[in-house]
Amino acid sequence: MPAEPTPDPSAHATRGLLLDLEGVLYEGGQAIAGAREAVQTLRERGLELRFLTNTTVRPRREVAERLTAMGFAIALEHLFTPAMAAAALLREAGLQRVWLAALPGLGEDFAGFTLDEAQPQAVVLGDLHLGFDWTLLNRVFVALRAGAVLIALHKNRYCRRDGVNALDLGPFVAALEYAAGVEARVVGKPSAEFFRLALLDLRLAASEVAMVGDDLQADVGGAQAAGLRAIQVRTGKYDPRDPSPVTPDLVIDSLAALPASL
Amino acid sequence: MPAEPTPDPSAHATRGLLLDLEGVLYEGGQAIAGAREAVQTLRERGLELRFLTNTTVRPRREVAERLTAMGFAIALEHLFTPAMAAAALLREAGLQRVWLAALPGLGEDFAGFTLDEAQPQAVVLGDLHLGFDWTLLNRVFVALRAGAVLIALHKNRYCRRDGVNALDLGPFVAALEYAAGVEARVVGKPSAEFFRLALLDLRLAASEVAMVGDDLQADVGGAQAAGLRAIQVRTGKYDPRDPSPVTPDLVIDSLAALPASL
Repeated sequence: MPAEPTPDPSAHATRGLLLDLEGVLYEGGQAIAGAREAVQTLRERGLELRFLTNTTVRPRREVAERLTAMGFAIALEHLFTPAMAAAALLREAGLQRVWLAALPGLGEDFAGFTLDEAQPQAVVLGDLHLGFDWTLLNRVFVALRAGAVLIALHKNRYCRRDGVNALDLGPFVAALEYAAGVEARVVGKPSAEFFRLALLDLRLAASEVAMVGDDLQADVGGAQAAGLRAIQVRTGKYDPRDPSPVTPDLVIDSLAALPASL
Repeated sequence: MPAEPTPDPSAHATRGLLLDLEGVLYEGGQAIAGAREAVQTLRERGLELRFLTNTTVRPRREVAERLTAMGFAIALEHLFTPAMAAAALLREAGLQRVWLAALPGLGEDFAGFTLDEAQPQAVVLGDLHLGFDWTLLNRVFVALRAGAVLIALHKNRYCRRDGVNALDLGPFVAALEYAAGVEARVVGKPSAEFFRLALLDLRLAASEVAMVGDDLQADVGGAQAAGLRAIQVRTGKYDPRDPSPVTPDLVIDSLAALPASL
């Protein structure tokens, strides 16, 4: 695979792009040089764009507001978050009564559903941090035993909190899966489900879409496992010494180089 | 396999017995008819006996006191609980500094160890019920990441609490295994580890020992998986309609029939 920003000969059929946000569009709250123009150029070429993020702590509206503040013109409906993916999954499965066991701010992303903690058809689980205690987990267990579907916004093992590694959402998903003898549907990157639902939103096939990301595991590996081509940028958390066996289909210096590479 | 209390032709080599407590020796706080005499007869025949229970909420001394109150003469050192098994495992692995994340009453079963929550070499996890919250679990996660071994007193998915199914210890073991990327050593029935450690305590080989229990899964299935023969009694939770595919090596009406069956 070419590692230089030369045109990818297999890319001529690309009709859509999935773009990671942090590390691809911006870094440290600032737009990456040339990223705004690149987004505009790609759009003018008629490419369908969706912007992906794994955040589960803020609603889509807040994500859009931050992008607007950085000078990106991105429509709300082109942002795809785990909450969007979960909502798509619920609609697909015809589940209306939802217990949103997540930070309350996410509620606006589930506006079309009936929030029902007593008799939910599905439990959407986000990171509750200190909110995860025996009583809450047992209530979810009871709902799962009564037949509710478990949807996890992601299944990360641990994350940085106050500078140290600490429990993330994943262990609590694992606990509930074990207790109730079920398997959660996980919608955050790098789950294939997330990419499948983003393609559904684009109305394009995997072969017509490329993912652009800085994270070799979550972005590149996840997209390739779901059948998409994956382009890695040398910005954000890009690290040439990453020991992962994943190989991107293309590596470019930054999003600014993408229009010339397609 | 014979289902009647007739002598088992393969039993002539039996030199030791593992006896479950509840449902085998007693039911509802009362000794089962003939059980006390059977224990006495088996002992007079020179059989080595160990009494097994999966309790993780009371120390061995309290279990012994209850048995004494019901008229059983059983030495403390012949009782084998998950705490005993965990202590044996710690000694075998040469681990001295232990965080006993269990009900405080169990502490006396770990008298020979140094209790150390700050830098443990092993975390022994019992059911803490409401004590399981994010902060406690995260502290255990940090200890595991620092290299501590995880020993679980059992890994049951759920149990009855106040008359309804509720989370047991197992889901929290699963959460920690997932978070830290480790596998717990589980010492309660039906784990093969429990039977292996009980045999070590008896100083007998699996082929020389039979397990006597009322629970088809935990007692009979667990013992057979560990290479022991297993005798089921028709007392306690015995249920002839149990759909489990496990087949005991022998089924007897109650412990009173055991001396005549060996």
